Amino acid sequence: MCGIVGVFFRNKRRDVVPLVLKLLHALQHRGQEAVGIGIYNGSELMVFKGLGLVSEVAQRIPKDVEGYIALAHTRYSTAGSKASLRNVQPIYAFHMNRWIAIAHNGNIPNHEEHRRKLEEEGSIFTTDADTEVFFHYYVKAKGDILERLKQAVSKVDRAYSMVVLDGENLIALRDAYGYRPLFVGESTEMIAIASEDSALRQLGAFKNVWEVEPGEALIVDKHGIRRYELVSRERRFCVFELIYFSRPDSKIFKHQVYLFRKETGMRLARMEDKHIDIVVPVPDSGMASAIGYAQALGKPLEMGLIRNHYTGRSFIQPTTEKRRRTVRDKLFPIREVLEGKSIALVDDSIVRGTTSKEIVRLLREHGAKEIHMRVASPPIVNPCLYGIDMPRKDELIASKLDLEGIRKFLNVDSIRYLPLSELYESVRHRDSFCFECFGS
Amino acid sequence: MCGIVGVFFRNKRRDVVPLVLKLLHALQHRGQEAVGIGIYNGSELMVFKGLGLVSEVAQRIPKDVEGYIALAHTRYSTAGSKASLRNVQPIYAFHMNRWIAIAHNGNIPNHEEHRRKLEEEGSIFTTDADTEVFFHYYVKAKGDILERLKQAVSKVDRAYSMVVLDGENLIALRDAYGYRPLFVGESTEMIAIASEDSALRQLGAFKNVWEVEPGEALIVDKHGIRRYELVSRERRFCVFELIYFSRPDSKIFKHQVYLFRKETGMRLARMEDKHIDIVVPVPDSGMASAIGYAQALGKPLEMGLIRNHYTGRSFIQPTTEKRRRTVRDKLFPIREVLEGKSIALVDDSIVRGTTSKEIVRLLREHGAKEIHMRVASPPIVNPCLYGIDMPRKDELIASKLDLEGIRKFLNVDSIRYLPLSELYESVRHRDSFCFECFGS
Amino acid sequence: MCGIVGVFFRNKRRDVVPLVLKLLHALQHRGQEAVGIGIYNGSELMVFKGLGLVSEVAQRIPKDVEGYIALAHTRYSTAGSKASLRNVQPIYAFHMNRWIAIAHNGNIPNHEEHRRKLEEEGSIFTTDADTEVFFHYYVKAKGDILERLKQAVSKVDRAYSMVVLDGENLIALRDAYGYRPLFVGESTEMIAIASEDSALRQLGAFKNVWEVEPGEALIVDKHGIRRYELVSRERRFCVFELIYFSRPDSKIFKHQVYLFRKETGMRLARMEDKHIDIVVPVPDSGMASAIGYAQALGKPLEMGLIRNHYTGRSFIQPTTEKRRRTVRDKLFPIREVLEGKSIALVDDSIVRGTTSKEIVRLLREHGAKEIHMRVASPPIVNPCLYGIDMPRKDELIASKLDLEGIRKFLNVDSIRYLPLSELYESVRHRDSFCFECFGS
Amino acid sequence: MCGIVGVFFRNKRRDVVPLVLKLLHALQHRGQEAVGIGIYNGSELMVFKGLGLVSEVAQRIPKDVEGYIALAHTRYSTAGSKASLRNVQPIYAFHMNRWIAIAHNGNIPNHEEHRRKLEEEGSIFTTDADTEVFFHYYVKAKGDILERLKQAVSKVDRAYSMVVLDGENLIALRDAYGYRPLFVGESTEMIAIASEDSALRQLGAFKNVWEVEPGEALIVDKHGIRRYELVSRERRFCVFELIYFSRPDSKIFKHQVYLFRKETGMRLARMEDKHIDIVVPVPDSGMASAIGYAQALGKPLEMGLIRNHYTGRSFIQPTTEKRRRTVRDKLFPIREVLEGKSIALVDDSIVRGTTSKEIVRLLREHGAKEIHMRVASPPIVNPCLYGIDMPRKDELIASKLDLEGIRKFLNVDSIRYLPLSELYESVRHRDSFCFECFGS
Repeated sequence: MCGIVGVFFRNKRRDVVPLVLKLLHALQHRGQEAVGIGIYNGSELMVFKGLGLVSEVAQRIPKDVEGYIALAHTRYSTAGSKASLRNVQPIYAFHMNRWIAIAHNGNIPNHEEHRRKLEEEGSIFTTDADTEVFFHYYVKAKGDILERLKQAVSKVDRAYSMVVLDGENLIALRDAYGYRPLFVGESTEMIAIASEDSALRQLGAFKNVWEVEPGEALIVDKHGIRRYELVSRERRFCVFELIYFSRPDSKIFKHQVYLFRKETGMRLARMEDKHIDIVVPVPDSGMASAIGYAQALGKPLEMGLIRNHYTGRSFIQPTTEKRRRTVRDKLFPIREVLEGKSIALVDDSIVRGTTSKEIVRLLREHGAKEIHMRVASPPIVNPCLYGIDMPRKDELIASKLDLEGIRKFLNVDSIRYLPLSELYESVRHRDSFCFECFGS
Repeated sequence: MCGIVGVFFRNKRRDVVPLVLKLLHALQHRGQEAVGIGIYNGSELMVFKGLGLVSEVAQRIPKDVEGYIALAHTRYSTAGSKASLRNVQPIYAFHMNRWIAIAHNGNIPNHEEHRRKLEEEGSIFTTDADTEVFFHYYVKAKGDILERLKQAVSKVDRAYSMVVLDGENLIALRDAYGYRPLFVGESTEMIAIASEDSALRQLGAFKNVWEVEPGEALIVDKHGIRRYELVSRERRFCVFELIYFSRPDSKIFKHQVYLFRKETGMRLARMEDKHIDIVVPVPDSGMASAIGYAQALGKPLEMGLIRNHYTGRSFIQPTTEKRRRTVRDKLFPIREVLEGKSIALVDDSIVRGTTSKEIVRLLREHGAKEIHMRVASPPIVNPCLYGIDMPRKDELIASKLDLEGIRKFLNVDSIRYLPLSELYESVRHRDSFCFECFGS
Repeated sequence: MCGIVGVFFRNKRRDVVPLVLKLLHALQHRGQEAVGIGIYNGSELMVFKGLGLVSEVAQRIPKDVEGYIALAHTRYSTAGSKASLRNVQPIYAFHMNRWIAIAHNGNIPNHEEHRRKLEEEGSIFTTDADTEVFFHYYVKAKGDILERLKQAVSKVDRAYSMVVLDGENLIALRDAYGYRPLFVGESTEMIAIASEDSALRQLGAFKNVWEVEPGEALIVDKHGIRRYELVSRERRFCVFELIYFSRPDSKIFKHQVYLFRKETGMRLARMEDKHIDIVVPVPDSGMASAIGYAQALGKPLEMGLIRNHYTGRSFIQPTTEKRRRTVRDKLFPIREVLEGKSIALVDDSIVRGTTSKEIVRLLREHGAKEIHMRVASPPIVNPCLYGIDMPRKDELIASKLDLEGIRKFLNVDSIRYLPLSELYESVRHRDSFCFECFGS
Repeated sequence: MCGIVGVFFRNKRRDVVPLVLKLLHALQHRGQEAVGIGIYNGSELMVFKGLGLVSEVAQRIPKDVEGYIALAHTRYSTAGSKASLRNVQPIYAFHMNRWIAIAHNGNIPNHEEHRRKLEEEGSIFTTDADTEVFFHYYVKAKGDILERLKQAVSKVDRAYSMVVLDGENLIALRDAYGYRPLFVGESTEMIAIASEDSALRQLGAFKNVWEVEPGEALIVDKHGIRRYELVSRERRFCVFELIYFSRPDSKIFKHQVYLFRKETGMRLARMEDKHIDIVVPVPDSGMASAIGYAQALGKPLEMGLIRNHYTGRSFIQPTTEKRRRTVRDKLFPIREVLEGKSIALVDDSIVRGTTSKEIVRLLREHGAKEIHMRVASPPIVNPCLYGIDMPRKDELIASKLDLEGIRKFLNVDSIRYLPLSELYESVRHRDSFCFECFGS
């Protein structure tokens, strides 16, 4: 999972760096592991990469770096892979007398086969990233930009939202299924591309913010934007963007995210059959659902768990044992709020179950009488092939245990997930969404 | 303002570093500008200082640094002073064949007079910090530790909670008024000192966590803890610790902080006379009060403003003009929640008013119909002399404007502060608290 | 220009890092601008690159990095190109399930044509380095290692001495002309490859140090060394390695370098027709020639110029104006030695003439009566196509001015270069050497 | 041992940083372990300290730092003490409303007694440096600058050459014995102070460079220089400055250093009674003496040992065992020069003997037939109390062994030191010099 960004200054103003950093920072929630930024000044592409947050990597860009086109990428921690600079995007090359670079959000499911085939043809890969497969197809294609985009898209059909630099052109490209969101902001001064509309709106600089359509390519140059429909397919919007990944103030796949999450909480409340004293969100992921749930149920919302937001990189802990400790470094229970209460504990989703289990343990240690786990999405039974970073199938608790098994594992008094049918209702256009992680 | 920490391993185990870092991290909310850590290994005191967060400065401590006593300090940004390493605590020296070091929370009001006097006597100061005045009095005093503490305390009577290293002893010291909190945790393995009880409890390692009494000194050595009442005075607990500074899950001056804040919100709600559609907290500072206010009023709490928690150091902006931009980088409004609504905007306090003014502007731009500012503490009319970092009196909006002036400045439809009388009720023991910043 | 190194531990001992650093450090004179090191541990190739000296870049290699094969590169400042990490070698890729990496000393004259052709075939280049052309030919070739080496060598015939990693094999390769030196050291424990024999001998670890033959490939694996003659041509040893580039204690192309330089100085002395009081070397490049010259002439050698060896990177100055200042930061004249003297100023060669001109100015300011410039090689009239970093032809003083013009430009009383015929005599086998920079 | 520097811009030009860095760099040979620089801008003293070379530490000074007065210090590695920032000079404080700072070259023999006394009076020390004793006496003294200098000088009579900042004044101070050199350069624009005249002359910016007299204080302010004779004593110039420490192009204690060293070599040659084929200097310390020796003897000088000047910090090795390895990383013998020869090996001095022993071993391994050690100073039998960093007495080879013992230890065929009587002759004014390390 990741966030991507592109900026094009129409009048060749050269101060693109502060703007691209602001946009990246606005997408920081989409990836905290690594950042890569490419700045094009009309002749050179300067690329800066680093592990860590945007604010940390930004410090490595020398003060005198200027350019009028930029593309950038912020990467989520990928399960099982060591943090390394080698795979940080953009991927780039100086080829046939111009720079080509790609920043990619999504995942290409069968990239290893593509790679093997390309290597046999003599292609040399410099990273392990799936993105480089698309990069090779695009670079090796013949013809003008549009023609080359078509050839690459015909080879790799999913899942990607991309920002591409090709010479003096900036390109936005989204696969025909539309798995990942992609937005454009336009003003008289510039054109910007970002994974979420909220990042663009936050700048207050665009008179116009709209979505790149699935299967569409936008080619930006000094004359403006040209739009091309490359290919058309049924939609496969990633419902997990609404449930967890996107910023609450974004509007993704036509849904306002905070209100979507609040609605899932309300739907959960309507089927409540237990006595609940207080509603406690798992901060921050369960906040919106908990507000909806508490409102619909007419029970008080209480911040029975306080979240420490100062979790720096050096405290990030990879193993399961350490993940348990991390819960206690990040979430602080308040005994005076919890003691003797029957609690609805609301979260957006459960993946491995290890974090939830530890939270339950914490609440019990601090006096909770009953704990009713309420999850604002269905059980996750499959890992995602299209770009959401999830553990292997055998690490997903809902693929291993039935509901009662999960209840016992978490040690809660009751557990309820949002039924898939209710999620269908929440998204309105069921056929346009991908529910593969929920087994549908 | 700042947070302080001390750790003493009874059995001279040498791995004190991870523990002191955890405690510091747990107090990160009390200061994000700079960190200083002293590690004593029985012969050397190694001191590491850096600007930034605990997680950043921790990376500078070499892996092989060991010790069994530690003291540390995390500093808040002080108004008007440039971030500099020179004043980062602990202050320390090798004197008469042993190490002495001090980490201090609080402020000595007339420290410049003390300094002048000491300089005339030949003392040489290496920092600008008020703390160094106390340090000099303590080091120059004669007799044993207790005797020297008494002499220093007789010279400087406020405001301090301190951790002191003197040779093989770790000392906790709190002034007679008790302005700043200070807690001790005790187990068979170690004794730890910290500014808030929550930091100690979070570790789950102490069978016993209690408060250092005002006027009390605790001297810790390998034989255990000795407690001495050095001096006794009327209490002057800082009410701002409850209103804003301490962690919501702490219990400070006998008050559970989250519940204290919730109660002030409830008191505000009881005198509400406007029509309110939704209650919107200023996150995170107004959260607890907003929950109390919404519950008491029976109106829905909505996260109409989303907070970005990834604000790194390089984005910190010192000037007023920049502070306005910072609001828009940190708080994201949701039009779909705000549009057409009469909003109660709840915050814990107002200092300069510039941040609140910018938040109001944001809400109006995103469709708010009416904005009713609700502040869960009285107007601040005086800067603090005892350790809360506040701007000069002429920068405090409530010392310059009357209520109607503030309302107009903020451009809200109505404004209400918590009356001082209600704050008195909230703290229960009015005479034990300092309300100087509120003009009382 | 650069130095290259390779190490192979026969018994898979994993502590290759200190050894490869020592070898690199021993070749530091061959390049001070950048360093790249690749460490292979049997499954991963870890690559570390940095600008600066070996001692600086070495600090970036984490303590726990281990491996049993290594290859490395130290790069000279290339005229006109900005110092950048992108072109630092080794060039490497993970291809068809094994790592391939190349460190290259030399220059491929027509690499841009090769590159254009390869790009048209779909190859993607990640650097600007000429080396990558060879890398692509090698990687795209079919068959076993020997077969692929033959194919690449048939495409690119000069100028290179190389160390190649291919899976579990370490390869030493030298072009058929032998422009650049390359040596192998062998012991029961390891096999090492380096640009100069002195670096290998300095370690005191090899019972056997010999030269890789021109046109030869050595393939090293756990079974030992296999030697293959790939191709045979007339020799073209770079005479500038003897004149300037190699370490004085090396034995390159069968010549002991210090003695070679001393001999050129002696030849210069034999044709001396001016009155000389003292012989002053330009330290350190003119030292050996000056000793030979002074001995043959029977005149006293005096260190009239002292060299400051502490010239750090931050003092390196790129432009001509600054190069003049640099002379005064690096060379310190002694008035008491120079005053009133007729001086033979001896250097190994003159390239632009700007440094020599500034040295002459310094000597005159400090009282030199007469200055007779004596150059231990012929006038340089062509830039080098095969790997010696030299400015463009129009910056070479001897390609622009005749002898009298140079004398006037330098402001010396007389000037004498070593005649080409004397250089032919010095190298003994005239036909085996390249004299293109001297116009022959 | 160390080098010190001060700069005062008369017209308050604010770009003092590049100049002070150049002067420091010119004194780099006087200390490579640590650097400290203080920049005064009229209100603030900014101090930058770091371990390493000037070029490394310079990179830490932010580009926007400005000032018109500066003082700085470069420190030699002190025997037995760990490299640490705490003792890096200048020592400084903000005291009685102005900045005071001191950079000190020399050593105060009984500083620990002074320290104990001062601590008992309540002084607090922040470093272990002997300099801080003088600093305390100066700061605690009463009256104007001159008066305070007199009081401090009356307490501590040796050994120091100092640069002091006191408010808007820059001071040069040298003890009455004159152990350490100190020079002033003056131009219409500025006044600069440095440990050696060569550093000042190298800049080419001063019309006037002269020596600060022993017992003299120079006080520089915007009106110019005032000179005061504070105290007068017999001279005790450190002869080791001439033998080893100072730059060959300096003129110290009225002696041109290169010519002084050459003369000692000539004196050694005059008493030669062995057959010598070639004269080999230990580079660079024995170079000047070897030239004198070879000239006087009429035998050829040969660079039989080549020195690698790229010895970075990470290769510095503290223990004896490692010192032996270091010789082989730094000095490269040439077999073709040495083989079968009777060699005079010339160095300036022998301290421990371990380095010389290793050099002899190297020469023998490379074919030397006979080795005659020739040392251009007498045997060192006492460590220095006045600022030359030397090992303890029991580590000095000449305090443990007689001449034959040393010869055997070094494994040379003969050994000759310069007799003390010849050294007396070389310095001309025997009574003005300190020969304590030579037992006189």
